[in-house]
Amino acid sequence: MNENELVRRLVSIGWRGSRAVRLGPGDDAAFLRGGMVISTDLAVEGVHFRLDWISPEEAGFRAGAAALSDLAAMGAAPEALLVSLAVRGEPSLALELQRGVRAAGDRVGVAIVGGDVSRSPGPAVLDVVAVGRARTVTVRGGAEVGQGVWVSGALGGAAAAVRAWEAGTEPDPRARERFVAPPDRVTLGVALADAGVARAMIDISDGLVADARRVADASRVMIRLDAGAIPVDDGAGDLNLALEGGEDYELMFTAPAGAGSRIRALGQEMAVALTRIGRVDEGEGVVLEDSLGRVRAPGRGGYDHFATPDPGGAS
Amino acid sequence: MNENELVRRLVSIGWRGSRAVRLGPGDDAAFLRGGMVISTDLAVEGVHFRLDWISPEEAGFRAGAAALSDLAAMGAAPEALLVSLAVRGEPSLALELQRGVRAAGDRVGVAIVGGDVSRSPGPAVLDVVAVGRARTVTVRGGAEVGQGVWVSGALGGAAAAVRAWEAGTEPDPRARERFVAPPDRVTLGVALADAGVARAMIDISDGLVADARRVADASRVMIRLDAGAIPVDDGAGDLNLALEGGEDYELMFTAPAGAGSRIRALGQEMAVALTRIGRVDEGEGVVLEDSLGRVRAPGRGGYDHFATPDPGGAS
Repeated sequence: MNENELVRRLVSIGWRGSRAVRLGPGDDAAFLRGGMVISTDLAVEGVHFRLDWISPEEAGFRAGAAALSDLAAMGAAPEALLVSLAVRGEPSLALELQRGVRAAGDRVGVAIVGGDVSRSPGPAVLDVVAVGRARTVTVRGGAEVGQGVWVSGALGGAAAAVRAWEAGTEPDPRARERFVAPPDRVTLGVALADAGVARAMIDISDGLVADARRVADASRVMIRLDAGAIPVDDGAGDLNLALEGGEDYELMFTAPAGAGSRIRALGQEMAVALTRIGRVDEGEGVVLEDSLGRVRAPGRGGYDHFATPDPGGAS
Repeated sequence: MNENELVRRLVSIGWRGSRAVRLGPGDDAAFLRGGMVISTDLAVEGVHFRLDWISPEEAGFRAGAAALSDLAAMGAAPEALLVSLAVRGEPSLALELQRGVRAAGDRVGVAIVGGDVSRSPGPAVLDVVAVGRARTVTVRGGAEVGQGVWVSGALGGAAAAVRAWEAGTEPDPRARERFVAPPDRVTLGVALADAGVARAMIDISDGLVADARRVADASRVMIRLDAGAIPVDDGAGDLNLALEGGEDYELMFTAPAGAGSRIRALGQEMAVALTRIGRVDEGEGVVLEDSLGRVRAPGRGGYDHFATPDPGGAS
């Protein structure tokens, strides 16, 4: 059972329909009656972060920023965070993690309004709940044939940092910064949604290809990515990391073919690079086109918590 | 640093005031603009439950019921749950935990609208987010001198089950049932709040004395408990377990002195025993009176995740 299949099964166990819910599970966040948008995001020591790589405060900041990124992807304005913390014996670790989440909340002007804390006999675990508000939300299923595919910022930096740490070296400082301080795309996500420009939107947490595939699946379309157009982070310098690395927390969205100038103007206004990286086509899944028009299906497509380990190391 | 002190520090790090928030951290749940009530509840394997004691589905049910109990204590009607799960390699454990939370949601008519899932290199961790709605909420700080102190149901059963397991024996089936299936007090909590009867309310998660002390502290009053009046669960048979055992998930509330007959009528209507167990007095903290009027301060007062282990075993 891979992670997507596990999530599908969890959703089918948990979901039963509800009049209190405008959009149930399966997107970046749930959308409740009254316009509340809510999402949870787990960060597990040894899986999402290691405390010999980054400080507890940096780990907290990442977790907070990742949770807020789900709201950005729905076009929802954040209102509050809640933080559940499980830590080994020493409670000071909980305080440092909390400080980091608070800093991520401060960046978008929201406080931590609740949470829970427990001893953990194992790794430190943070679960950050992000609560926001929206009139309408931008979902994964809104992509239509003919739309352009866009991405904010540049990709692959966070994954480059992880690769360096895993190889026992210190990452490029730019890559490290991308890992410890995911970008704040909340204002951008809300603006793209409110302007009606973004028709499908997702935040890139598991890698561009994996998250593009989620949009393609939810919209029943094919996404064609233009390999030469994908913005690769200076700290990464490797297209594969940009395609499959994950943890970028940039926004990928689709927009009507004629929306390019509005999108570029919005990007300039917000000082965020917005790049057209492909188009929506008939079909299914994600394909990658090179400059000669050659097409290939990309590799395994992102991080999978429950994948069977790849014995050969090649994918 | 004990758990109360840790929570105080976490709150002071995380909270900054917010116009989007009607009641911030420090109570059973936060109360947001628009009437949303939200709480999170952690359940950590090896701390809150053990899978050699109970099944994964039972552990999920407990975690879901515990989260919903926080809404009951605010007088809020539940609308949705979110569930974050971290499990060791085998994802089937996540499915069983989710089934249990779903069953707790079904009991009060709400679905699981979102969540997250991750591999854990250590114990299984569930964080259940309960989202509800209320016009006004019943907080811990509403107790006033002269009010009566009441409790729903009977106490000590869950703690008796834990004591049996820890001693290597099988618990009394009634005690076991109290541990695996905390009561649903949502309808009761909403009715007590809506009728204006409950002036301060809390759910008993860490033990009657510890949670009564939270109400006393928040209200700046003393709570006098009448030892002879406290309803001890048939499966417990030990007043100390009822006072300090915890995990009962019953409601303790204070009510005006003249409200007794209304409260008893409400209890009859809902088939829940509601017992007057004490009164609110001037002073601070919690004291216990026996039938001869002798007063003593109760012991350590409930479970503390971060307490220094008691070397002598006596407290």
